[in-house]
This record gives sequence, C-alpha cells and structure tokens, in this order.
Amino acid sequence: MRDVAVIGVGLTKFGELWDKSFRQLIAEAGSKAILDAGISGKDIDALYVGSMSSGRFIGQEHIGALVADCSGFSYLHIPSTRVEGACASGGLAVRQGYLSIASGLNDIVVIGGIEKMNDVGGVSATETLATAADQEWEAFFGATFPGLYAMIATRHMHEYGTTKEQLAQVAVKNHANGALNPYAQYQREITLEQALNSTMVAYPLGLMDCSPVTDGSASVVLCAAEKAKEYTDKPVKIIGSGQGSDTLALHSRRDICTLDATVHAAKMAYKQANLTVKDINVAEVHDCFTIAEICAIEDLGFVKKGEGGKAVENKITTLDGEIPVNTSGGLKSKGHPVGATGVAQIVEITQQLRGQADRRQVKDARIGLAHNIGGSGATCVVNILEAM
Amino acid sequence: MRDVAVIGVGLTKFGELWDKSFRQLIAEAGSKAILDAGISGKDIDALYVGSMSSGRFIGQEHIGALVADCSGFSYLHIPSTRVEGACASGGLAVRQGYLSIASGLNDIVVIGGIEKMNDVGGVSATETLATAADQEWEAFFGATFPGLYAMIATRHMHEYGTTKEQLAQVAVKNHANGALNPYAQYQREITLEQALNSTMVAYPLGLMDCSPVTDGSASVVLCAAEKAKEYTDKPVKIIGSGQGSDTLALHSRRDICTLDATVHAAKMAYKQANLTVKDINVAEVHDCFTIAEICAIEDLGFVKKGEGGKAVENKITTLDGEIPVNTSGGLKSKGHPVGATGVAQIVEITQQLRGQADRRQVKDARIGLAHNIGGSGATCVVNILEAM
Repeated sequence: MRDVAVIGVGLTKFGELWDKSFRQLIAEAGSKAILDAGISGKDIDALYVGSMSSGRFIGQEHIGALVADCSGFSYLHIPSTRVEGACASGGLAVRQGYLSIASGLNDIVVIGGIEKMNDVGGVSATETLATAADQEWEAFFGATFPGLYAMIATRHMHEYGTTKEQLAQVAVKNHANGALNPYAQYQREITLEQALNSTMVAYPLGLMDCSPVTDGSASVVLCAAEKAKEYTDKPVKIIGSGQGSDTLALHSRRDICTLDATVHAAKMAYKQANLTVKDINVAEVHDCFTIAEICAIEDLGFVKKGEGGKAVENKITTLDGEIPVNTSGGLKSKGHPVGATGVAQIVEITQQLRGQADRRQVKDARIGLAHNIGGSGATCVVNILEAM
Repeated sequence: MRDVAVIGVGLTKFGELWDKSFRQLIAEAGSKAILDAGISGKDIDALYVGSMSSGRFIGQEHIGALVADCSGFSYLHIPSTRVEGACASGGLAVRQGYLSIASGLNDIVVIGGIEKMNDVGGVSATETLATAADQEWEAFFGATFPGLYAMIATRHMHEYGTTKEQLAQVAVKNHANGALNPYAQYQREITLEQALNSTMVAYPLGLMDCSPVTDGSASVVLCAAEKAKEYTDKPVKIIGSGQGSDTLALHSRRDICTLDATVHAAKMAYKQANLTVKDINVAEVHDCFTIAEICAIEDLGFVKKGEGGKAVENKITTLDGEIPVNTSGGLKSKGHPVGATGVAQIVEITQQLRGQADRRQVKDARIGLAHNIGGSGATCVVNILEAM
C-alpha cells in the first residue's frame, strides 16, 4: 500500500446554524480544505462524503453526487461516494478515501463530513439518531442514545467505582478546551457544579454529560505521500488506520463497558503504524457522552480498563496532561454534527501536528490519534497521524 | 493495484416479499455467496453493503454494522461499511470492496446489496425514491423519477425519432429474459401490445416502461486474484472499474439524453481493462425505465447516440443478438431493489462468464459489463469482468 498524507483541512463553525443549508455547509468546508491544500478542481481524483442520515434529516439521499454538484465539480464528472456508519460516517469516509489512494488508483481525494440537524423537517433529531441503534431490539422499545449510554455508565460505576463527579470532569475539561476553539458550538467554560447540577437526562447522565445537536461540516484533502510536498510544507501522514464492528444492540455484547470495536480498530491501527499507545501525543476521541470518553481512553489503552474515571480526575487528559484528549472541545463542547465529526477530528489532529492549533496547541505533538464511534459502539474507526 | 476476482455469488428471490425482513434478506444472500465461495467467517477481511435508503424505508441507518451482526460475524469485529449512491449503491459497494483488495489491505471481502421497499412504514416508496433526485430543484416541485425519465424520453423521441414502440420493445425483451430467470420478480413474457397499452404513468412511459418496487438482496465475494484459484475453478476477474458523477438535477445537464456520468465511468473502465466496447459479450445495464436502457447502450458505446431505439427494434440486444443486454431480465422484469441492483448485476455477469446462466446463457461469453446508475444519472458505476 502507498503512504497517504493530509495536505489540507477545512471546517465550518459548528452550532445551530439556522441561516446555513446543507449545501452551503459542505461547500464552505470543502472550499476551505481545497484552498488550504492549494489544489484546483482538476487535481481531484475522487470525493468521499460521510453523512449519517441526510435522507431523514433533509430528505436528500444521493449526496455523493450532490456534494460534487454543489461544490461546482459536476462538469468534471469526478467519482463521488457517500459512506455511512452512523456517527462514524466521517471516519469511514476518511478511511475509504485513504484506501483509494493507498491502492494506487487515486492521487488526490477530497473528503467531506456533514450533518444538518437543526431547522430540518420531519421527526425529532433524537428519533433520527436512534436509527443508529438496533431498531428491532432497542429503538422500537423506546431506547434512545442517552438511555443506552446511561446503562453503560451505571454499569461502569458499579464495576469500577466510577463517579458522577468523574463524568462531570470530562465535560468540564472539554468545555475548557472548546472555549479556546473559535469553531466550537459552545465556547465557554463550565464549572464542576454546573455540570453536576445540570438537568437530568437519563441517570447518571445530565444535560452536561451529553453532546449537543449540531449543524456543521468538515473537510480534509488527502494525497499520495510521495506527492504531498508539492502542495504543502507540513504534510501529515496517516500511518495507521483501523476499523471494527460489533453487535448493533448493546445488550448482545460480552461486556457493555468495553467497546470491542474500539479495541479491534485500535489494535489494527497500532499494528500498521508500528507503535504503541505510549507514542501518542494527542487524541480526539468520541465523547458523544462523558462516559463514552472514559470508555474510549480505556479501550484505546491510554489507561487500564476501569481506570478512566480516575485518569480524568487526575488530569491525565487535560491540555497540559500526559495525553491530552479532545483538545478541540470534543463532541461535548465543539458540537457533534454526526457525519462531520470523524472528519473534524482529523482536522484537529492535523492542526495539532502542524503546530497550528493556536491556544489549544499541545507542545511538541508529533503523533496523534482520532477515534470515531457509530451508535453505542457497533462501528469504530481509529486513524493515527504523524507529522512528516 | 492488485487484481481482484469474484469467487462467490448469492441472490434472494426478487419480488414483493411480505414474509421476509431486511435482516433475513441480507443474511440469505450473504450466506449463499459465502457458501458458493467456500469460505468461512474467519477468512473475511471486510464487508461492504450498498443500500439506498434503509433509514427511510425501515427506519434503520448503520446497516454496515447490522449486516455483520445479523450474518453472525459480530464476534469477529470485521470492518463493515455501508455505501450509498441512490440506485447505484450496489455498484459503489462493489467498487469500494474492489479497491480495498486492490490496495493490498484485504484479501477477501464480502459485498452485500439490499433494499426492503414493500411492507415498510412511513411515506410511499416513490417519495423515498425521489430523495435520489435534487430535493430543492426537482422533488420539492413535485418531480418524481417517472416524470424525469419521461422528459428524457420525449427529448430522445424529438431529437432522434425514437418511438414508443421501441421503448416497449425494451420491456418485451427484458420480460422474455426474466421469464427464464427463477429469481426474477416477473417470470412471464409480455407482448408488444400489452407493453404499448399499459396504464400511462408519465407520457410516454406506461406502466410497462417502469421497473417495479422490489424487495431483494444480492451478494458477491471478492478475493485477491492471485488467491482466487484456492477457492474456485471458475474465478471471474474484475478487469476494469469506472465511476462518474453529474449534476443531481436533470435540467442542469448539457444534454438530457446523454448521461455523462456513464460516458465518464465507461471510459475509465474500458481504459483500465484495455479493451473496447467490441470486446464485450454480455451486459447488464440500468433499465429503471425503458428509455434508460436505450440511453445506456448509446452512452456505453454499444451503438451510436440516437441509434439505441433502432438497435432494440433490430434485436441487437436480445439473448441471441450481437450484444445481449439484461439477460437477467434487467430492472424491468427481474425487479429493482435499489441498493441490491448493482450487486445483482455482478451476480448475473459472473454466472454468464462461468457458463452457469442456464436457459439465459450467452454462448461463449468471456467478457461482461455491469452498468449501474443512481437517480437520473448523477452517479454511475461501470465494472467489466472477464472469465479467468
């Protein structure tokens, strides 16, 4: 397989963007990434786009073609493919684009991630998000994602003594990071008391344990590594990529506190990158709920199983901690436009490894990891990047 | 890029399958393909699934994971990815799986295509299918696919003198083929009179010019060509794969009678296969409407632009014609479970090239082509296969 590098990144502001349509968002993120990479339309061999549920949110499927069209590339007839894996759609799109270059077929590929979740027709966002769960065995009986992750949290508390305070500390940390990110939905710090006393959603998860409903788009330009220096002085190489699946329904898992899809994807990515978790300098992990970040840092091997809560309490994962996690603010504070999230993680890691993360910059970050989850963990993508 | 071969195929019966769920269909097609290939679960490196709108049809997104799960593979944590490009979703899934092996990452990949369109909740199938058109500029104003293809047909009649009889002859031919296919939704011949006198849907397209609403699933197993002979005596190599995009809205095209996405994808596939259209012995093309088959045989270069109607009249494309088209019965008679169609085309071509197409067998077929369209032509995938 050929080596592949990120040569451009672009992001829209994340938030409740009542004045921006799906088409505007994807075109804005894509244009920024293309401008950042310094390429033109005719350099692009293919497009990949991750979106979870454009069909339900905005009544539009076939958005691979739409993205080529509304980006002004339809006259070039560029292959454009949509990939879906619930909230891991963005990570999957990055991985498919990566493989298409690694295969030798394409030299330059633009990846987009997008979700328009506010100001949309039809049913509620929560109901559409629940289509990422098992319809027959979960959603049909009324389970939504806050409820499913609440079950993971209570079990984690029971097994490992994880506390509601430790969950709240994930939110406090991520809001502190988000306050430094001009693209974040919530650019403000919160206190531990605010997090602990927020409206209960599904015990033990309060409102401040939950990521919000967000509009937004992210884009990255990938290039065959051997050609990357023609476009940028600071290419960032994808040195490992892993993907795993698991049962769609949470109750079918061998252990609901361990996301085996993460364990599997991480093992694949570490092996390909030929490194261990000790080599990771910065990570974006999938904190759709605070408990999800605790599970993620355990399943990725940053800490032992059961010690995630304690690690957060001991500030291992803060901006100046041993292994800074979710420097962007994470899904909690930056926002979670589901199809865009996995691509936005690559944007943040790229900026960190380029030394362009401004007030969020992790000192001497050279290797970064992005971890993207679909549903309650039935899909996981892990990508590891290194400054070239 | 590594060479890739088809080593197994599987198909469910296509039709109104009121007693079979989405999960049953995909598991049935997948099991048949796996059995045909003689592989076991632990041999499988990845799964890809094509589905257009499971989110709207059955309220279930995240079907990559679902497919791994309901096929019994969740314990293996195999990467499983859903790909969507409207009615070209199946073709795209084949192409992504192909690239993942060509890259050297995977050795064996199982592809599934699926749509459950009958006995589903929510809005009508026509309304969900219209999400493959441009929501803002077509569907919102009431355009559905019969209407869009009717515009292509009237323009084609105006420009080239194509007749309603020639359109009807596409249906008569495909029903004659479908009558020989035990998996087809409609296993009966129709007369020219029946086709011409069928209920008008959108002038000039009558009911017999339109493909039906279908439940069904198809699956193929792909393998690195160098290992294919370990599994089968009759591997079929993918020698060319092309993909193209175009504007989502029909009215934005330079010429509504030419699907430029087809022209682009075909050029790519012919070039990679290092052959010309003269070398093709059998083809499955995307006849969602009779006019679509006429455009396809022109855009693929089987005949000159404008001569498609005449070619059908002259029986060039019948089972014993110069270039047999839609030997399976095509979308018209075999049925069109949208996400499954592109995979089912590969099943038919593989059976033809193996010499296993029974009463539909094209004599000495060695090279076959599959042509899969999304919407009114905003996505196209062309794959060319050759008996090894």
